[in-house]
Formats: sequence, structure tokens, C-alpha cells
Amino acid sequence: MAADGVKFEQRHGKSRVRVGRVWREPSGRHHFVEWNVSISLLSDCLPAYTRADNSDIVATDTMKNTVYVKAKECRQQLSVEDFAILLGKHFTSFYPQVSAAIINIIEKPWERINIDGQPHDHGFKLGSEKHTTEVVVKKSGGLQVISGIEGLAVLKTTQSGFEGFVRDKYTILPETRERMFATEVTASWKYSYETLASIPAKQLYFMEKYMDVKKILIETFFGPSKGGVYSPSVQSTLYDMANAVIARVPDVSSIQLKMPNIHFLPVNLSSKDNPIVKFEDDVFLPTDEPHGSIQASLSRLHSKM
Amino acid sequence: MAADGVKFEQRHGKSRVRVGRVWREPSGRHHFVEWNVSISLLSDCLPAYTRADNSDIVATDTMKNTVYVKAKECRQQLSVEDFAILLGKHFTSFYPQVSAAIINIIEKPWERINIDGQPHDHGFKLGSEKHTTEVVVKKSGGLQVISGIEGLAVLKTTQSGFEGFVRDKYTILPETRERMFATEVTASWKYSYETLASIPAKQLYFMEKYMDVKKILIETFFGPSKGGVYSPSVQSTLYDMANAVIARVPDVSSIQLKMPNIHFLPVNLSSKDNPIVKFEDDVFLPTDEPHGSIQASLSRLHSKM
Amino acid sequence: MAADGVKFEQRHGKSRVRVGRVWREPSGRHHFVEWNVSISLLSDCLPAYTRADNSDIVATDTMKNTVYVKAKECRQQLSVEDFAILLGKHFTSFYPQVSAAIINIIEKPWERINIDGQPHDHGFKLGSEKHTTEVVVKKSGGLQVISGIEGLAVLKTTQSGFEGFVRDKYTILPETRERMFATEVTASWKYSYETLASIPAKQLYFMEKYMDVKKILIETFFGPSKGGVYSPSVQSTLYDMANAVIARVPDVSSIQLKMPNIHFLPVNLSSKDNPIVKFEDDVFLPTDEPHGSIQASLSRLHSKM
Amino acid sequence: MAADGVKFEQRHGKSRVRVGRVWREPSGRHHFVEWNVSISLLSDCLPAYTRADNSDIVATDTMKNTVYVKAKECRQQLSVEDFAILLGKHFTSFYPQVSAAIINIIEKPWERINIDGQPHDHGFKLGSEKHTTEVVVKKSGGLQVISGIEGLAVLKTTQSGFEGFVRDKYTILPETRERMFATEVTASWKYSYETLASIPAKQLYFMEKYMDVKKILIETFFGPSKGGVYSPSVQSTLYDMANAVIARVPDVSSIQLKMPNIHFLPVNLSSKDNPIVKFEDDVFLPTDEPHGSIQASLSRLHSKM
Repeated sequence: MAADGVKFEQRHGKSRVRVGRVWREPSGRHHFVEWNVSISLLSDCLPAYTRADNSDIVATDTMKNTVYVKAKECRQQLSVEDFAILLGKHFTSFYPQVSAAIINIIEKPWERINIDGQPHDHGFKLGSEKHTTEVVVKKSGGLQVISGIEGLAVLKTTQSGFEGFVRDKYTILPETRERMFATEVTASWKYSYETLASIPAKQLYFMEKYMDVKKILIETFFGPSKGGVYSPSVQSTLYDMANAVIARVPDVSSIQLKMPNIHFLPVNLSSKDNPIVKFEDDVFLPTDEPHGSIQASLSRLHSKM
Repeated sequence: MAADGVKFEQRHGKSRVRVGRVWREPSGRHHFVEWNVSISLLSDCLPAYTRADNSDIVATDTMKNTVYVKAKECRQQLSVEDFAILLGKHFTSFYPQVSAAIINIIEKPWERINIDGQPHDHGFKLGSEKHTTEVVVKKSGGLQVISGIEGLAVLKTTQSGFEGFVRDKYTILPETRERMFATEVTASWKYSYETLASIPAKQLYFMEKYMDVKKILIETFFGPSKGGVYSPSVQSTLYDMANAVIARVPDVSSIQLKMPNIHFLPVNLSSKDNPIVKFEDDVFLPTDEPHGSIQASLSRLHSKM
Repeated sequence: MAADGVKFEQRHGKSRVRVGRVWREPSGRHHFVEWNVSISLLSDCLPAYTRADNSDIVATDTMKNTVYVKAKECRQQLSVEDFAILLGKHFTSFYPQVSAAIINIIEKPWERINIDGQPHDHGFKLGSEKHTTEVVVKKSGGLQVISGIEGLAVLKTTQSGFEGFVRDKYTILPETRERMFATEVTASWKYSYETLASIPAKQLYFMEKYMDVKKILIETFFGPSKGGVYSPSVQSTLYDMANAVIARVPDVSSIQLKMPNIHFLPVNLSSKDNPIVKFEDDVFLPTDEPHGSIQASLSRLHSKM
Repeated sequence: MAADGVKFEQRHGKSRVRVGRVWREPSGRHHFVEWNVSISLLSDCLPAYTRADNSDIVATDTMKNTVYVKAKECRQQLSVEDFAILLGKHFTSFYPQVSAAIINIIEKPWERINIDGQPHDHGFKLGSEKHTTEVVVKKSGGLQVISGIEGLAVLKTTQSGFEGFVRDKYTILPETRERMFATEVTASWKYSYETLASIPAKQLYFMEKYMDVKKILIETFFGPSKGGVYSPSVQSTLYDMANAVIARVPDVSSIQLKMPNIHFLPVNLSSKDNPIVKFEDDVFLPTDEPHGSIQASLSRLHSKM
């Protein structure tokens, strides 16, 4: 939208709409999800901004209500990706003025509890890393589906080093072949599906893919249970992880990884006169700030689909 | 300490001392812990406050250094409780003016990762709830050991109700035999050991006890995997949990539980004219504020030890 | 409460009840507060815990409703202390089984905005440190009123040192007469009023006292605008601050201060071969962890009232 | 960077580098800033990712050291924008492989304290909203300077409404001409300077501009101190604020505003039988989730410079 020598762009929506949904099987087994939904609409409503005319504005309160209506309409458990697509379809088809909807959802990591080794009918316990999604649906039917992981904190106590980097007058860090490697992975990957019609119809399809990608990321980070795998840098390990996903999951067209280097500093302490603690790959000072920030994306140039 | 019509009490220490410790077995298997240690000393140092005389002050920087020295001296993996006791013994025996040391530790929930079903030699992933401790050591040799759990978030989708409570002119809440029950348990329990000499010498003894108590709390909260157990109130379930620990762990002398009632509100929406969403035990609005706050402690009057 | 060889103690209530209240003067000037209220009741309701009998339980939802009812009934602006007292009186007088009510309130620091140097009729902007209160009201009419400040972050770039402290084999910290001094003060002070009848009736009395105490704390911390005042230790400054409040505010019977030493570390960097940054009281590394934790309380032995 | 059918993009840097800097005037007056610096470099270092060859990698530890070196070199107080530019120039000119540097800085809002109405020589207290910057410097000398405000929380108790919006079967929100309006403004604006050479040389130039923009945003939001100004929607007020900045600050070429609608819900409570609280523009329930999310950007099409 443009007017008198200026360009104007806007979006509005509702953030942090929390919804819990229970599905009850006749057997007594319950399924449960808790989602935090954010909606953003791209729509033709310039007069609301410039002329106090709200006639094309979908109230954000209405967007919130819609989340609950649609959650209710889902008769069986579905993935965050499918719920986001469903919301995006609704907003772009129901409102003439809405050209695109951007839906973000974070799923709270409730995991079914085991009691005496048996999965519980209706009991859940909070786990750690989170499944996320960002879906963009266009009125044209075009779409983009991104899935992600947030807060996957992993650490290995050896098989990591950093050597041969630039040394100049600001450099203090010694080279090493033996250090801790800790990071909190944030991953997001885009699927190759570009239309509503092409989305796989299989229930919980994106949930399975999520589990697949997470498994590949973790296995590549750690290497085999006996002995692990050497990491010559965060950069190198990040690349291997991205590459493994692209190589092994055909319908992922690109992946972005953010892997801050969360430092575990070697502890060496000495007073003027004598050493107090001498580091021998044993005692560390973990620290959150500062941290290295390494991020990269890897994309297929030609889709395999 | 008292002077001219006033009473003065003080403590000083170092908080949030972070330490990571790796132990390496010849087999290639590593053990790893990450702790956040806080130290508070009760000591005779009034002149520092009233006369700018620091001669009895142990610098908090020195306390921090000591954490690293002592972590280094631990030649095999130990529990947070044992490390806290070891620190408390040091401060109360090394410094004449220190009458008592209060040590708090939070252990970061790093869990050994499994790759292809096998435990990894040196790979760890962050879990959820945290193991904590508070130990008080007195110069006399007296002590108090408290262990705890923080952030144990649990939820059941049924088998919970709340009926028969006080109804008055401020009451709106309907009675129900069917609701969600979600809480984040904070537990702390005191052991019956009251002297340094009486502490069990077995390695990782307090770690085992921690696992035992957590298991009892979880099993009591959820009930059997098939069908669960009915909760007539947060209060009642809390009592059952505390009681089960006291009944089944003889060396626990008391337990305190905080169990906020984290509400999942039934979603009913209607406009002036017609209903939009009608609740059928299916769609909920999870909310963090306000929340019910229920806490209680249960103590043995006569030790079983 | 006790039963079969165990002692049981409990409290329950509602936390994080948020309420905003506007009072409108005919002139067009509005007054506004935003409070976060937590209520805890001590009451005789053991059967709820042990026999699933809720007949003496005041639902936490009812407590929440009451906050809004009472906020509505307040016809003119009042302090958090007075609102807490009012709630405490209600719960202990309305419910026979409630023996005491503990009310905590945090006021959000909304400050009236100035536009062109004039106070705005109805515009507010969020400030920094927070006014808090904890009030205990007993059925007997006894009470305790504590006021507090949270998050008062202050810093001085000089006029601070630390010398003459214990030096031993764990000590590295050098002595100094020139360092940064930064802290985030948490203060709480108890008034000498011990019955509902003795509380001053003057509107906004406790608000004025809050402003007085804050002013004394700040002035004592910083010293005169020209030159400041030397601090020989956090301990000494804390004591002076507490002492000034006790000396100058007669109806405060005791005060507790927590003043973490938030470290600004001198930056000295050098590589194996040459210095990179040499500290000259100019460049610092601010850090939140670890931090010194210094806290103390000062109480009158004999009330001045 | 591309290889065998894939496209690869990366950046690496150091985040959360904290630095405090004191400048001391001979008069005894000190100037002080505390910054949180994040650096991200775009550089030619693909072999580090694909072939474990770190020879083109600038260690993130080196970046951190550089922040301290450069802070030391600044002989007089400067704005976050100027410090970011200075860092960006360094990284792009010192390292052949670095094509661009992205520098983000958040300044902690330390404000000089007044004692008895006089500004203190060396005493500071933490305020509320934060000054931020993002600067991109290219090896070519091209640059982009963005300044911002974070956490500017403002609220007005009247002169706000929302009417005439879309009503459909999901709509519940009533129309109103009388409501609270609360938001936490996040603003960022881009300057028209596009080369290092064109940046104004005046000391603290960007600090002054920051104060100007903040003043315009606040004045436009609230309107005159007597009576204020009516807001027909968040959208409309946001547009007016953006427009006022563009109109009155010639060297700002675009501005983005994010203004979540932080809801203060009217409190109406009733039981089955009777009303408990009836809303009369007096008692509100403030809530953080969900919140409306309104954001927009306004840009000049033709620079005025």
C-alpha cells in the first residue's frame, strides 16, 4: 500500500492464544495437546490506519475465538502443522480482504507418562524441547510449511576441538583438540509442498517427520554410542547435521540451524603466588553470555519431489 | 548480634556459582554434572557492617574459588547433597568465625542420551524437572539435609473433581466431577540425619533416594496406568502424595509440597445471539495466572530411625 | 493439625490475581493502579486433605472474585498496604474457619506521564522498581504490615572499595579502594502497628512512607551529588542504609535489605605474548552470575511508638 | 555459496558480549554506559563447514576481545550507533574474508540519579525502556543504521475505542468508545545515511535523535496533557505515531512499529443467581496472553536528504 510519497506495510493478528484439546477414545485412552497459537493476517485494510475506518478489520478477538471453534471441530488428534494449515485456509477463504495468513504454533512438550512400564491412559508429564511450526497460506492456495524444534539442548564432554583458525593481535583462544561442546539447537525446515492440494493426507504425517528429523539431528551431533564422532568446529557439525537431514528426508527442501556455542570454560585459578585449580579436562565454568552464535541454512536447488 | 537498642542479623555468600564436572572412566564412559551452587555463611563479622573492618569477612570471591577447588577434589561422581555437605563442612571447619553454612544446589537435568537404544559414552541431553538440595552444616557438626524437586509439571485429563466446597455470595465456580488437573510440583523433603557422622557413606545414596521419592510422587499423582485414580481436590491428592513418601521412605522425616492448581478453563463462547463454542470436556484455555496455590507439609512426630 | 504420629501444616490460596483499577475525578483527571495480588489462608480444613471433605474449603476461585469485588468497593485511590489490610479483614471475618490471611501485592510501577512539562490527565508510562506489600491479618485483629521495594537497581562508578578481608589459600581477589558498586536492592520493612485499630487512617499514608524510605535508601547509597560517599564494603553500605531508615522513620520497627553484589569485572586481556586490554578503571565486564549475596535485618528492640 | 545442487548460507558471531565503560571528567563527573553487543559476520569461510578447515574463521572469542579493545579506544562517550559503526568498520576492513558485519547493541537504561535535585557525579539508577541499534557495514563502505526502542510500556485509561469492525459468526467483542489502551511499543527506524562518509560527525548525534523520536512517539500516543486525544484503533494510533516521526525527523527514511494490544478486560462477574461485579469503566483484568499484535512500517519513497 502506498500514498503520497510513502510506502506502508502492515499486519495484525493475535498472539499467544493458548488452547488445550483432549480426544477421548472409547477404550479410556485420552490424547492431549497444548498449543500456543499466533495468527497474523495480511489484508487490505489501509483505511483503518489512515481514516479510522475499521470496516475491513477482523478483530483480533474474533481470530482468537476462531482458534477455539476450529480446535473443537477437529475430531481426531492432528499435528500442529495440520492445525495451522486449517486455520490459514479458514482466514484466507472466509474473509475477502485477507490475502495471506501466517500461523505460528508452539506445542508444549507433554509426554504420556509410564507407570510400571505401561503408558498411562490419561496422564502426561512435561518434557523438554518443543515442536513448532510456521505456515503461510495464500488466498491463491499457495502455501509454505515450516516445522521446527526449539530448545534442544545437547552436550558432549569430549570429541570436540577447534584448531587452525585466524590468529591476529586480538586472538587469545588457544587451539585445542579436547573441549566440551554444548549447544541449544533451534532448527526449522521447509517442506517442498507448495499448494494445499499437495499436502499428504495421512494423519500425523508431520509428527512422524518431526520425529525423523529430530532423530537425524541428534544422531549426527553425537555419533555412535561407543566413541562418538569428532567435531572440528561447531560450523562443521552444524553442516553435517543439516546435510544429513537434506540427504535423508526427501520432502524437506531446506533447513536452517542455529547452534549457539554455549561455552564451558576450563577452570584455571591462581593467586599471585600459587596455582589454586589447574584444569585437566575436569572442572568447567558453564556460562550463557557471551556465547558464540553460529547459524546456517542449506537448501536444495532442485526439488527431489 | 545486638547493639544500642537494635537487633542485627546478617548472612553473606555467593549465589549462582556454576560448575560443570566431568569424570572419565578408562572404558571411555564419561560421567557429567552441572551444578548451580549458592553459599551463605552465618559468621561473626559485625565490625564489617558497623566499623568498616573487613578482617573477619570471607570474600565471596573466595567462596566461589572454593567451589571449584572442592569440585576438583571429588574423584568420583557424587550427589548434590554430598557436595553440599562437603562444602558446608569446609566452611564451618576452616574459618573460626563461621558458625554455620547454608548450601543450596540446583542440578541441571542433563540425561545420558541413547543412540540406537544404547547409552552414549559421553553424550547428554537436557531433561525437564530439576534435583535440588539445601544443606545446613553447623560448626558443632549438626546438620540438616533437604532434597527437592523443582519444575515437575504433570497433568491428567480426567479423574479429577471438586465438589462440596463453601458457597457464598462471592462463589461462581460450579461443582464438578470431571475436570483437568495440572500442576507443577515443587517438593522438598528433610532427611532424619542430624549429624555429619550419621550420613550414609554409600556413593550416590541421595541420588537413589531422589529417584525413589520422585517415583512415589508421580505414581500417587497418576494412579494405575489403566484408569488412574480419582482426585477429589488438589488438597487431597497432595496429602496422599506426601503421605506415601512418609510411609515408604523411612529416612525422610518430613516433606513439603507446593502444588499450584494450573487452570485449564473450559471454553464456552457465545455472542449475544448464539453459542459459538460449547464445552464438552474437549477444548480448554490453559492459563498461568491466576493460579490456585496449595501447599502443605507433613512431618513425623517421632523419628522411625 | 496433627494425627497418628504426624504433624500437618497447610495453606491454600490464589496467586497472581491481576487487577487494574481506575478512579475518575470530575475534572477529567484519572488515577490508576495495577496490582498483582496473592492470597493465602490459614484455615481449619483438615478433612479436605484427609477425607475428601471440601465443606470447609473456600474455593480459590472465590478468593479471586473477592479481589474484584473489593477493588470495586474502593471509592478512592488507596495504597497496596490498605488494600491488603482490607482483604485480610474480609477473609478473617467472613469465614469462621479462617484464622489468618496472608496477602501479598506487587504494584506495577505505572507513573503519570508529563507532556510539555504538564502531568497528563489519563496517561501513564511504566517505570522501574516496584512497590510491594505483605500483610498478615489474624482473626483476633492482630496484624503485621510489611512494605517493600523490588528491583531498585543502582550503581556508582567510584567511591567503593574492599580491603582487609581474610586472605587464605583460596583467595585471589586483590584489595582495592577503587571499584564499581552495583546492586539491585530488595528492601522490606515492618511497621510497628500490630492491630487493625492502630493503623493510620490518612489516605495514601503508606504510599508516602514508601516514598520516604526509598528516598532514604537512595540518598544513603549514593551520598551527596558532589563527590558521593565512600563505601568500604557492601556490608557497610547496607548497614548504613538500614540504620538510616530505622533512625529517620519512627513507625518502622525493622527493615531487611538484600543487596547482591552485581559484579563489574575489570577487563584485562592478554595473549601469550602481549597485553591486549589493560584495565585502567575504564572498561568492565558486567556479569549476573555468580554474584555476591549480602543480606541483613535491623530491628528495634524497643518500639519508639 | 553453492555446491552440488544445494545452496548454503551462513553467518557466525558472538552474542551477548557485555561491556561497561566509564569516562571520567577532571571535574569528578563520570559518564557511564552498559552495552550488550552482538556481532555477526558474513564471510567467505565455506571450507570450515564442509572440509573442517578453519583457516578463514575469525574465532568468536576474538570478536569478543575486540569489543573490549574498541571500547577502551573510545576516549569520550559515544552513542550505541557510533560504537556499532566503529565495530563494523573494524571487522570489514581488518579481515579480507569478511564482506559484511551486522552489529546489534542494547543499551541498559542507566540514568544519572538526582540527589536533592542535583545530578550526581557518579551515581546511576536503572530506568525502563531501552535504546537499541542494528548497524550493517559492508566492505564496500555501504552501511545501514537502524535505531530502536524496546519496552516502552504506555497506557491510557480513556480516549480509546474500537467500532465498526467486521462482525460475523465468530465475533463476540462489543463495539465501544470507552476502553483502556495499553501497549508496549517496540520501534525501529532507519536513517537515510547509506555510506560511512555521510554519517554526521557530531558527538552523541544519534542519542539526540533517539530522544527526539521517543518524544514524538510518546506525545502522539497520549495527546495533550489536558484531555488527550481519541484513538479509534491501535492501528490508527500506530499510523499517526509513525507518520509523525517521518514528518518531523528528516533523516529518518523509514520506521517500523510493533504495538501489541495488551488487554485490560472489563470485569463482569455473576453467579447463576445474581451479579457480583458489574463493570463501570472501573475494574479491569490485565492480561498478557493472548494479546493483539499490530505492526506496520512506513517508508519514504523519495529521500528528503
